Amino acid sequence: MADSRFFTVAGPFALEALAGISGATRRDESDPSALFVDVASLDSAGPQHVSFLDNRKYLDAFQASRAGLCVVAPAMAEKAPKGMALLLSDDPYRAYARIAQAFYPVLPPEPWQAPTAWVDPSASVGEGCRIEPGAVVGARAEIGRRCRIAANAVVGDGVVIGDDCTIGAGATLSHAVLGHRVVIYPGARIGQDGFGFAMGPQGHLKVPQLGRVVIGNGVEIGANTTIDRGAGPDTVIGDGCMIDNLVQIGHNVHLGRGCVLVSQVGVSGSTHLGDFVAAGGQAGLTGHLHIGSGARIAAQSGVMRDIAPGETVGGSPAVAMADWLRTSALLSRMIRRKR
Amino acid sequence: MADSRFFTVAGPFALEALAGISGATRRDESDPSALFVDVASLDSAGPQHVSFLDNRKYLDAFQASRAGLCVVAPAMAEKAPKGMALLLSDDPYRAYARIAQAFYPVLPPEPWQAPTAWVDPSASVGEGCRIEPGAVVGARAEIGRRCRIAANAVVGDGVVIGDDCTIGAGATLSHAVLGHRVVIYPGARIGQDGFGFAMGPQGHLKVPQLGRVVIGNGVEIGANTTIDRGAGPDTVIGDGCMIDNLVQIGHNVHLGRGCVLVSQVGVSGSTHLGDFVAAGGQAGLTGHLHIGSGARIAAQSGVMRDIAPGETVGGSPAVAMADWLRTSALLSRMIRRKR
Amino acid sequence: MADSRFFTVAGPFALEALAGISGATRRDESDPSALFVDVASLDSAGPQHVSFLDNRKYLDAFQASRAGLCVVAPAMAEKAPKGMALLLSDDPYRAYARIAQAFYPVLPPEPWQAPTAWVDPSASVGEGCRIEPGAVVGARAEIGRRCRIAANAVVGDGVVIGDDCTIGAGATLSHAVLGHRVVIYPGARIGQDGFGFAMGPQGHLKVPQLGRVVIGNGVEIGANTTIDRGAGPDTVIGDGCMIDNLVQIGHNVHLGRGCVLVSQVGVSGSTHLGDFVAAGGQAGLTGHLHIGSGARIAAQSGVMRDIAPGETVGGSPAVAMADWLRTSALLSRMIRRKR
Repeated sequence: MADSRFFTVAGPFALEALAGISGATRRDESDPSALFVDVASLDSAGPQHVSFLDNRKYLDAFQASRAGLCVVAPAMAEKAPKGMALLLSDDPYRAYARIAQAFYPVLPPEPWQAPTAWVDPSASVGEGCRIEPGAVVGARAEIGRRCRIAANAVVGDGVVIGDDCTIGAGATLSHAVLGHRVVIYPGARIGQDGFGFAMGPQGHLKVPQLGRVVIGNGVEIGANTTIDRGAGPDTVIGDGCMIDNLVQIGHNVHLGRGCVLVSQVGVSGSTHLGDFVAAGGQAGLTGHLHIGSGARIAAQSGVMRDIAPGETVGGSPAVAMADWLRTSALLSRMIRRKR
Repeated sequence: MADSRFFTVAGPFALEALAGISGATRRDESDPSALFVDVASLDSAGPQHVSFLDNRKYLDAFQASRAGLCVVAPAMAEKAPKGMALLLSDDPYRAYARIAQAFYPVLPPEPWQAPTAWVDPSASVGEGCRIEPGAVVGARAEIGRRCRIAANAVVGDGVVIGDDCTIGAGATLSHAVLGHRVVIYPGARIGQDGFGFAMGPQGHLKVPQLGRVVIGNGVEIGANTTIDRGAGPDTVIGDGCMIDNLVQIGHNVHLGRGCVLVSQVGVSGSTHLGDFVAAGGQAGLTGHLHIGSGARIAAQSGVMRDIAPGETVGGSPAVAMADWLRTSALLSRMIRRKR
Repeated sequence: MADSRFFTVAGPFALEALAGISGATRRDESDPSALFVDVASLDSAGPQHVSFLDNRKYLDAFQASRAGLCVVAPAMAEKAPKGMALLLSDDPYRAYARIAQAFYPVLPPEPWQAPTAWVDPSASVGEGCRIEPGAVVGARAEIGRRCRIAANAVVGDGVVIGDDCTIGAGATLSHAVLGHRVVIYPGARIGQDGFGFAMGPQGHLKVPQLGRVVIGNGVEIGANTTIDRGAGPDTVIGDGCMIDNLVQIGHNVHLGRGCVLVSQVGVSGSTHLGDFVAAGGQAGLTGHLHIGSGARIAAQSGVMRDIAPGETVGGSPAVAMADWLRTSALLSRMIRRKR
């Protein structure tokens, strides 16, 4: 179903193979050798397509769907339309993700060094890399294997990049060390000076920013996001973090493993997040805070204090989520009374 | 008055011609053949300049102005200084816009393919295009006529661009189909993967993003704005939308015709806006919402529910504008009482 | 201590020289000829390193530090561990900044014009400039001495740049005039059209944007920040302003001297700031406001009215800081009572 100008579909895959790929359970009554050619949404799928149901809100679409195969939670199985084959999973979205990855695998890039790319003679580039037109690789940079440095991206002097990384079009890196399987989206800015200076009426005096940005394995960093290097210590992004577009990460910030920062979040300097912290869009965190593992921060929150592990907060200034909801409800009642 | 290093003025134009260009009404007593050489603000204009009054706040400046010609609402005519010629219009700013466009027309670009540009042999580029230094046009891309692909911009593989479009310096496009007369400002990122993955403590699993970004005619997309492609369906930007700088548009978002999104707005995935919706700066919309045509969203609002056509909302969480104003007034009274 | 792949340390410096460099006072009992080789944080420093104490919060780290030399306020001197030499200053962070600048000086760039750079024959480039790979310098542009135009940066037609400026990787300039010692960080967008059009149901009509961006001396502009040119008047950034990443500055905005705008701030069109105004992260200012010199705006504030010189405001809509704190405290009490 995807536009063939932009996407190439693999497959077809037999039902039995898709069960193996997804880790979902096949029901006995379906034909294990039935072939499927693509993934599709519930409302656009046909008999040769695989779809999924993850949100009860789409139950009607599920019951009306013509999809040949659907990944669902076991409790939904009895609601399936006649003739639809099912794969059962306690986490249907995750199982579906594996199937969609099979149909649309991320392939290693086609090796190339474009004539208009610039690779400094002192840089080292691993085997299987693709350096696209206008890309620049600086002095002493070290790039691993099977990396794609997209058009007009810039890898600064001395930057280290692991294997199987993608540096998006127009993105720029400096003073940075990246792990494996890192994806930097177009226009992200990694490693520039942090916002550090001694303020004063006689003029603000710049403080040299002497740290780096250290990025773990399997990290994604969104389009036009900015991550400043440390002032002395490093700025650190842990393994598996997912950072959306237009996010700001200040100097000396540490993110643990698997943090999720939605678009336009800002994290001020020297704030440390534990593992699997999630922050909604446009949330802001002031500097020098400690945010415990598993904490959740609502969209547009303004966090000005430490947050305990697992705590959920909202509002600006951010308070416990229950208190924020209570405040909104209270204000709503008060103005209604006043009318 | 504009700096000639950057702007070239057309003209001069006679009063009668400016009446025709603007659609405004000339008063009988003025000389139709009087010539004007440029536009200028009320306070800097001289006898050969055209100015306008759109906001009563500037009435004093109008009455003190030396402008030879001014576009005003009919009700303002009697307040004009002696000797100033007038063009009368119910929408003076719009009439002035047409006159300013006549003095500073957007000309088709001077055709060129810079030696340091990279155009893939399989791409098609229409007549009259300008491909500036360092610009990159990918495989099978299709570019219409009279387009300007500015310095270091990147048009990804398979991208389709209509006629008379400008892709600003350093902007990047992928997985996108653009109409005619689209202006992409410098550094905008169009078509990268949306923020879609199955979260989980064993790691977040990326879901392939299989849609596109489809942009209508006459759209402007601001500097460093990011628009992610759809996850399966497309992300759609309707005809005539005006999107400011640093705006985030998530995957599967639909904007109808003529929407106006001010700087730093964020629209989360799968939210649909009708026609002529306006959102003030830094407003945020969560995902999967329906915003009716003509709705107005105040700056910094946090929209977490559907909005009816024509409704105006403010606050975070956003409520009806009147309620938001009432809440602010109530809180202000309460703290004053407590002092 | 800094990673030698990215930083080169100068020195060593004798204690007496560091006293002179920093303007801080040396105590008699220390050896003026003792040599120091680098700066370091209190907890990582050794006997050959210089550190500083600026925040009482780090008093424990100071007392446990093995730093050979530390810059402190006079009142802290008696708390120093035995054997640590001291430099005394009323502004230890500023004194330290000068010392760190001595160890890590900003050197003029190594002159170069990369073979893949594009410099229009009509442009003028001063002596000692470095034009890196993929950088583009447009027609009639004028670049001063010892400037660095980093990889894939774009200096548009007619743009004027003073001496000792850095234009970061992938940044783009148009319709702009810059002073000396300006640093533009990677991906910043300077001088594009402002968001100016006559709105209407028959379509929004673009108003030509005929001004420039005029930037003073010693200004820093953060990564992916956007500054639109004026609509007729200029957009003006005063001497010594420090602007962080992802900030939006609308058309016709004026910033006085030494303003500090933290990341993700937005300033709407035609708003004027005096000197040394400071705005916290994600604050937003609507258009046509006057913000007095020395005003302070808290993070995430929404400023919708003029602010007097020296006033401090917070909240959205922003009110006097004391009122904002009072409101938060009142709401907190009210929901506690309701439980």
